[in-house]
Amino acid sequence: MPLDYEIFDLGDFSLQRGATLRDCKLAYKTFGTLNAAKDNVIVYPTWYSGQHYDNEWLIGEGMALDPTKYFIIIPNMLGNGLSSSASNTPEPYNGPRFPDVTPYDNVKAQYRLVTEKFGIEHIRLVVGWSMGALQTFHWGAMYPDMMDLLAPFCGSAKCSRHNKVFLEGVKAALTADAAFAEGWYTTKPNKGLRAAARVYAGWGFSQDFYRANLDIEALGYSSLEDFLVAFWEGFFLPRDANNLLTMLWTWQNGDISDNELYHGDFVKALGAIKAKTYVMPGATDLYFRVADSENEVAAMPNATLIPIPSVWGHFAGGPGTNPVDVAFLDEKLKELLAS
Amino acid sequence: MPLDYEIFDLGDFSLQRGATLRDCKLAYKTFGTLNAAKDNVIVYPTWYSGQHYDNEWLIGEGMALDPTKYFIIIPNMLGNGLSSSASNTPEPYNGPRFPDVTPYDNVKAQYRLVTEKFGIEHIRLVVGWSMGALQTFHWGAMYPDMMDLLAPFCGSAKCSRHNKVFLEGVKAALTADAAFAEGWYTTKPNKGLRAAARVYAGWGFSQDFYRANLDIEALGYSSLEDFLVAFWEGFFLPRDANNLLTMLWTWQNGDISDNELYHGDFVKALGAIKAKTYVMPGATDLYFRVADSENEVAAMPNATLIPIPSVWGHFAGGPGTNPVDVAFLDEKLKELLAS
Repeated sequence: MPLDYEIFDLGDFSLQRGATLRDCKLAYKTFGTLNAAKDNVIVYPTWYSGQHYDNEWLIGEGMALDPTKYFIIIPNMLGNGLSSSASNTPEPYNGPRFPDVTPYDNVKAQYRLVTEKFGIEHIRLVVGWSMGALQTFHWGAMYPDMMDLLAPFCGSAKCSRHNKVFLEGVKAALTADAAFAEGWYTTKPNKGLRAAARVYAGWGFSQDFYRANLDIEALGYSSLEDFLVAFWEGFFLPRDANNLLTMLWTWQNGDISDNELYHGDFVKALGAIKAKTYVMPGATDLYFRVADSENEVAAMPNATLIPIPSVWGHFAGGPGTNPVDVAFLDEKLKELLAS
Repeated sequence: MPLDYEIFDLGDFSLQRGATLRDCKLAYKTFGTLNAAKDNVIVYPTWYSGQHYDNEWLIGEGMALDPTKYFIIIPNMLGNGLSSSASNTPEPYNGPRFPDVTPYDNVKAQYRLVTEKFGIEHIRLVVGWSMGALQTFHWGAMYPDMMDLLAPFCGSAKCSRHNKVFLEGVKAALTADAAFAEGWYTTKPNKGLRAAARVYAGWGFSQDFYRANLDIEALGYSSLEDFLVAFWEGFFLPRDANNLLTMLWTWQNGDISDNELYHGDFVKALGAIKAKTYVMPGATDLYFRVADSENEVAAMPNATLIPIPSVWGHFAGGPGTNPVDVAFLDEKLKELLAS
């Protein structure tokens, strides 16, 4: 079976924290056709552990992200198993030696794809969920003249302190398994992956979601325990542990101002974002809080705060889990694209 | 050094789920003097992993729980390392064979202490934080004619589904450590205890607490990582893993209606509580939610909902961590005791 995606070769790609990934690969998939004016481009980065497949729920004819109108590029995050990752990089940067990658690195790689491969100079919209939102904010701050619109949803421009702590719990659970062997595992660290999944389960959906039994009533699981095993453990078990840790580090170290452009001045970086932006947090998201989005919007010249009214917690934003939330999001994206 | 607490021997104590703890011990400490009328009694159960020492912050001359006025009994929860526990029970019910204990069992044991040891027939107030609140609710539903007042704070009458999930994460992290050895550890499962601590860190304090840097600004830790190591890992490491799991099971299976009195009818059990009750959730508590307290109060004939206005999450209620919250709580307890 042929691959359903393409590879852009970044060559020797030097990372922000010092390592160089030689023969670095950026996996991506496109939808629709780039028009002659090259002005119908949407960039739509992936989220924590997600691959381009997992982004497709927001794309479709008649939807805001309509491939009959737009040329939609989904770049896979470094570390996600398709782009260069711990799991697919040859020695010596393989496994736990896979280097630290920042969102800045990811967006730099994506910029090269967009400009070098496709000759695109202007982007209509950058949009993304969760860590995709983190990359969306980075696009806005790193290349402020390059796009008209931004739509980060259920994400932030900088990993909050509490968000870091939540991720510390996930990481500690995953790496507590002796089979993890400091990343040199020869068999999959099942116990650690299952533990990480159970830790994540409390964070992914809101207290209100669980109170309303939506795991059973809406998602069709047969019991709470079935939801923990079938949905959550089933979600984590196929993933490579080192890849998960690469992306976790990327997430924890996300900050649009942590680079040579802004030298840690977060408010300045937010203020530099020119694009018209809809910042859309989930109203009950337990790690990307509405309060954090409010602070961001207050420092952005052209941004509007639009909380997604949902009890689905972080999953209000994706990956297409709740049709009502998808409809809300799609409507707002249509509104933004029409402006 | 003599023990600073007493032991009440429960003899052969049969538990709700079938096991019998032979020569079962209830450790307790009292403050103040039982008056002749035996009408100045306050019962104040312990919380998850806490021992009576950890309850003393709410007791003091001039405070609501004033030992110059009241006879205050702190019974240690079964499984907390002082009362009968996995760590101190001889074979064959030792270690991971220590049986499942419900809050119902705990309160039954406490009732025997109060009535058999002290000949007390009436209690002025039962009060408790967290799992202490869970036991407080149990007192109200199991012995509705026995007390005037109840003050459960940052706790619930039944473990919510989301709360169960959060605890699954803590448990999975703790038990992922190979050194845990299914409870038959010969050396302390340090990695698992530290992992459990990191998981708990995200839940114990609110997002707002971390956003305001209160770990540094108010509690004096030198960095976020210092807080995770010194406070959180330092909190978990001295604890016995099997004891933690015993109490975790007690917590997850807490439900005032899960007994022969109410046969699972939770609303009926809440409705049976006669005592005047102040239900005091923390406004930003991530696992005992105000919404759950609201539902409880709605079904109780004589209860008032009083959220603690605090960003300290679950630690708004204890253990004396934030002086402002302690003052709020103490004031409300004085008001309740004056009624």
